[in-house]
Amino acid sequence: MDTTRVLAAALPLHEGAEITVSGWVHRVRDLGGITFVLLRDRSGLAQLVYDTPPDFANESVISVRGTVAANEKAPGGYEVKVVESTTLGPAAGELPLSVNQTPENVGIDAILDNRIISLRNPRIRHIFEVQASIVKYFAEWLRNQDFTEIKSSKIIGSGTEGGTGLFSVDYFGETVYLAQSPQFYKQAMVASGLERVFEIGAAYRAEKHDTPRHLNEYVSLDVEMGFIENEVDLMDLEVGLLSHIFAGVARDHGDILGEYGATVPSTEAMAHTPRISHDDAKKLIKERTGKSAFEINPEGERVLCEWAQETHGVEAVFVYAFPRKKRPFYTYPEGLKTRSFDLLFRGLEITTGGQRIHDYNTLLDTLPKFGLTEEGLGDYCKIFKYGCPPHGGFAIGLERITQQILGLHNVKEASLFPRDRKRVRP
Amino acid sequence: MDTTRVLAAALPLHEGAEITVSGWVHRVRDLGGITFVLLRDRSGLAQLVYDTPPDFANESVISVRGTVAANEKAPGGYEVKVVESTTLGPAAGELPLSVNQTPENVGIDAILDNRIISLRNPRIRHIFEVQASIVKYFAEWLRNQDFTEIKSSKIIGSGTEGGTGLFSVDYFGETVYLAQSPQFYKQAMVASGLERVFEIGAAYRAEKHDTPRHLNEYVSLDVEMGFIENEVDLMDLEVGLLSHIFAGVARDHGDILGEYGATVPSTEAMAHTPRISHDDAKKLIKERTGKSAFEINPEGERVLCEWAQETHGVEAVFVYAFPRKKRPFYTYPEGLKTRSFDLLFRGLEITTGGQRIHDYNTLLDTLPKFGLTEEGLGDYCKIFKYGCPPHGGFAIGLERITQQILGLHNVKEASLFPRDRKRVRP
Repeated sequence: MDTTRVLAAALPLHEGAEITVSGWVHRVRDLGGITFVLLRDRSGLAQLVYDTPPDFANESVISVRGTVAANEKAPGGYEVKVVESTTLGPAAGELPLSVNQTPENVGIDAILDNRIISLRNPRIRHIFEVQASIVKYFAEWLRNQDFTEIKSSKIIGSGTEGGTGLFSVDYFGETVYLAQSPQFYKQAMVASGLERVFEIGAAYRAEKHDTPRHLNEYVSLDVEMGFIENEVDLMDLEVGLLSHIFAGVARDHGDILGEYGATVPSTEAMAHTPRISHDDAKKLIKERTGKSAFEINPEGERVLCEWAQETHGVEAVFVYAFPRKKRPFYTYPEGLKTRSFDLLFRGLEITTGGQRIHDYNTLLDTLPKFGLTEEGLGDYCKIFKYGCPPHGGFAIGLERITQQILGLHNVKEASLFPRDRKRVRP
Repeated sequence: MDTTRVLAAALPLHEGAEITVSGWVHRVRDLGGITFVLLRDRSGLAQLVYDTPPDFANESVISVRGTVAANEKAPGGYEVKVVESTTLGPAAGELPLSVNQTPENVGIDAILDNRIISLRNPRIRHIFEVQASIVKYFAEWLRNQDFTEIKSSKIIGSGTEGGTGLFSVDYFGETVYLAQSPQFYKQAMVASGLERVFEIGAAYRAEKHDTPRHLNEYVSLDVEMGFIENEVDLMDLEVGLLSHIFAGVARDHGDILGEYGATVPSTEAMAHTPRISHDDAKKLIKERTGKSAFEINPEGERVLCEWAQETHGVEAVFVYAFPRKKRPFYTYPEGLKTRSFDLLFRGLEITTGGQRIHDYNTLLDTLPKFGLTEEGLGDYCKIFKYGCPPHGGFAIGLERITQQILGLHNVKEASLFPRDRKRVRP
């Protein structure tokens, strides 16, 4: 390993010393006789000072030996006076997309078509540093609550949720499908005796919508928990989980939040997240917009979050008691309603969850109402036939929560290599 | 949440108190007048004492209120004298597979055909508790070394590794594929400036082999790192990483290792892991078996690990300097050999890794030798065209390392819902 390498952010610790820095050529400024080069590495930017003009294009990867000197005009207050410069990976001269400009004026298609290059822009790359922290704190908090991480198959013989919206796979001549969610498997693992499980994995939706809030492949942060009383336990759980994620992101990435002009709700604010029934939510939307609707549409989601901010000081709200016909067959019924909920955050649904039917006979009675049969669901019903505790869970879309934390316009910005109706490359 | 619930393992802390325990009915012993029930929850087993015979089948889920009393014959030394017993989820009487028997005499097909039930057997479930710890410590160690977790797409427009062995997906009428590895993406993310990345995700191989060491879908623990000197850096990295994983598993799951008669190599032993060239490995296999072979076959892998144990005190060995024709096109060449390696552990290859070609022109010169073109590889070559540091990485098969730690006969035992030539359910 290059043990003598110093990261850009660590230069202040090495004033006067001869060190090595390595990274990408972010920008070159030739002042005649002296050349300033901004070097970019994973920690940030460093100013290099060349006596003779170096011969490399922007984005070339170089390794430089030199002496660290204070210079209040340099990023971080220090620069490196170059003694020796080696080009490790030369770059072709003409970039398909500028890396060192602010990406705000570049269209989403140009950013995604040139993903290999656009990810080099620090501001864009930072999205995925925040995303990595979300994953870390999601798992950390759940492990601390005695949840076990599982990895279930994404190749399924049949669709639990009805069979529509599935991508088909040719599996040695047999048609199988990509899983829309690990719903079946996470319920099975609760019933297996693990009781509390989570999964971080890909989910697939073969839906043709092309909106700023949809992806055809996304990362689902799934939680399932046994021995709950009802869906209130799950909403409580999610408040604790999100508070931990928000606090961790704020601690690790305050600088990136600042760059995006973003903040995260405090743990105290999250504790005040209001909970409103689906019926009351529709009434409230009608009062505020004058429009009535059968569903809570995107405008309604925004109105509810504004209401939560005004009345409870937090831009999040749980909507519970969805009608049975709006939820999947496995949702625990309560009269014409269900023990289910969505979490809206800053005007967007980021979670769907609820208690599930755990009684075998109740499930069998329910299937015909949804046009389903026990046989058609494969092994699903066996989970409940042989003893299953009351349980429920929820899923958070990783890209959506990343989008909402940073205030991104399009969820595709929060996917490294997004897949949509037209995009399967790079 | 059921705040009054006490886990089986915590009974000793509640002697004399009235508490609630909940879980699965593991076994019932009716002694006439008194009935002993073994209750199973995520922490272990608890003995319940009923004055009147309870009316439930094995595997029913119950919640019991009762008083904790010492009894040296009970598991953990304490039992619960039942005051009130509620059945939360009744089980059908006849189980397709016994849960409370040792699974050793049950065939792998019966275990996998009845996966929903077989996972309830504590010994089988414990495999996945160990697996969850492997994932945890893998990520933990890499984060501590400044690696960033990434999530790349599993749907790819074309195959980087040549196009064979790929499952095809119908993507809105277009034929695309399931990724064999995140190779392209992890290299792209090193070049993006993250420098050090890891991914935990599914990988797919459409290969028809049906052996105890192959799966068609597995979880790949991928690592990629920039600014390396050569493949030695990567082997050093992997020794540190595996040592951390082994130590963590031993600390968290000493009881499970004991149950399986398994141990893990100490950090000191791992530091002595020998490194042997592919040529020398073949010579050594010939000396020990009298047979010469073009490849290191499964027998050869076992022989090499025995040699490592005898001479270096560790059942692991790196084989490096594989010939060019045995490695993918992107492997960094060194004459007729490559800067690549495998790690064999207890007679099985659990890792393939190596330095990659990072120079654009070297890559372009290499492609025709493998019958490939720049266009055929989609955006892959762009990673290197615009400046890329020397880098490399490796991947560990999660199911294989789980298998080798616990000494499982078949890698399918280490997959919750394995996919093979004939199996896409449950």
